[in-house]
Amino acid sequence: MIVTKSIEEVRSFVNEKKKEGLSVGFVPTMGYLHEGHASLLKESKKENDITILSIYVNPTQFGPNEDLSSYPRDMERDCKIAEEEGVDLVFTPTDDVLYPGNYKTYVYVEGLTNTLCGRSRPTHFRGVTTIVTKLFNIVAPHNAYFGQKDAQQYFVLNRMATDLNMDICLKSCPIIREEDGLAKSSRNVYLNEKERQQATILNKSLNEAVNKVKEGERSSLEIVEGIRSTINSMDLANIDYVEIVDTETMQQIDEIKNKVLIAIAVKFGNTRLIDNRILEV
Amino acid sequence: MIVTKSIEEVRSFVNEKKKEGLSVGFVPTMGYLHEGHASLLKESKKENDITILSIYVNPTQFGPNEDLSSYPRDMERDCKIAEEEGVDLVFTPTDDVLYPGNYKTYVYVEGLTNTLCGRSRPTHFRGVTTIVTKLFNIVAPHNAYFGQKDAQQYFVLNRMATDLNMDICLKSCPIIREEDGLAKSSRNVYLNEKERQQATILNKSLNEAVNKVKEGERSSLEIVEGIRSTINSMDLANIDYVEIVDTETMQQIDEIKNKVLIAIAVKFGNTRLIDNRILEV
Repeated sequence: MIVTKSIEEVRSFVNEKKKEGLSVGFVPTMGYLHEGHASLLKESKKENDITILSIYVNPTQFGPNEDLSSYPRDMERDCKIAEEEGVDLVFTPTDDVLYPGNYKTYVYVEGLTNTLCGRSRPTHFRGVTTIVTKLFNIVAPHNAYFGQKDAQQYFVLNRMATDLNMDICLKSCPIIREEDGLAKSSRNVYLNEKERQQATILNKSLNEAVNKVKEGERSSLEIVEGIRSTINSMDLANIDYVEIVDTETMQQIDEIKNKVLIAIAVKFGNTRLIDNRILEV
Repeated sequence: MIVTKSIEEVRSFVNEKKKEGLSVGFVPTMGYLHEGHASLLKESKKENDITILSIYVNPTQFGPNEDLSSYPRDMERDCKIAEEEGVDLVFTPTDDVLYPGNYKTYVYVEGLTNTLCGRSRPTHFRGVTTIVTKLFNIVAPHNAYFGQKDAQQYFVLNRMATDLNMDICLKSCPIIREEDGLAKSSRNVYLNEKERQQATILNKSLNEAVNKVKEGERSSLEIVEGIRSTINSMDLANIDYVEIVDTETMQQIDEIKNKVLIAIAVKFGNTRLIDNRILEV
């Protein structure tokens, strides 16, 4: 397994493999890998000849008061997991190479980014679309894999890739959960014992919501209120948002129909957790 | 010569040529080709095995009161010129394919775009960087050719390509002029006889400016005032801007040093003409 900070080394590796007619899968991450990331690597391995993992905590997607400096990092352990998953190349770029002093260019998606996480993190998605464009241009993969946990991120990136005519297929993979249902996240390590126990309420509230929709409820307001009251039964939970949006536009809808995303963000202490369901009605 | 509106046809043509180990040069244009465009095609032919020309009047780079609908078009003549220049493929996409109804994504370069043409055309460069990103993703050339007449455009695009890690080399080619010195432009056809005569003042004023710098003048203010007074000697000339900027930042400088761009935009009636010089002092 190659581990490199060098853009040129990634390019020459990929070009060589493509010349041999091999397909290239790409999993961009911020590291501190868990079973969610591992599932993306497994999917890439299954669908491509070559799998490339990038590990980069991208500063432009963090707001000024967010957890950039404290975001958990463990490169050694990450490389061990990558090796176990059969990754061919790990790209570990540095800030000075990706964002030199005279850096000026941003990619952004209008509309889809002003709801959900975009509402409380106004520059977040501009940072995501910019870094993913850069990584796509460096790695030039055939396929790229993203977790459904960051559902809005996937829909925004897919819109971007379509709009900018990127010749890359973006794939969304299912959320991987702990045994008690909490969605796996690098940020779960921040939770203390009591917060960790109460955090299972996210998944439970979404299960209840899905059941209500299955039973025929079509009012977004009813579903949202149900989720809110379930989450608020936990004294440490502090709701950032509970929203139901159309998956195409990421805009709130009154009536549940077609393909919708039910997405929630809840803070426990300083730790912000997200979870979601995608439903076709 | 292939002429196609199809993104897929461009992709499969380029992929095939690249598999044969051939290099691909690209000249993106808005059509109504003149000797300036032809010089870019010649340069691409010289440096690449395959040359691709795109003809597309890009709506997102025109402001609401600009000349999008009246911009001169002549596809038949353009294809004849392309054929004469030995172009291998002409890409002629349509609005509905490049900007479908749910289109949402833009690429922009901060800082470099708020001076010169960016001042009087605030959304212009966002449109240019977005369409060029799209065309680059479709054509995926090794080299791309731009005219120095649109100097700010070249510096902005070069910044974008560097920042977004595009694996494409951007080249700037010299301004091609009429015998009397007027820079060739598709918009020259708008000029009436008297305007056409007076329009030669742009090049003359720049020649005077270059001579003054050669003689030792280093004050931007002095040079700018000289250009302004020369242009204002023509009763039909209406100055939009005369600016001297650093080529790296596109920001105005007081003292002429290092590499500078002297750029001017002047209206004759409704026709806006631009011209420039790049100087290394």
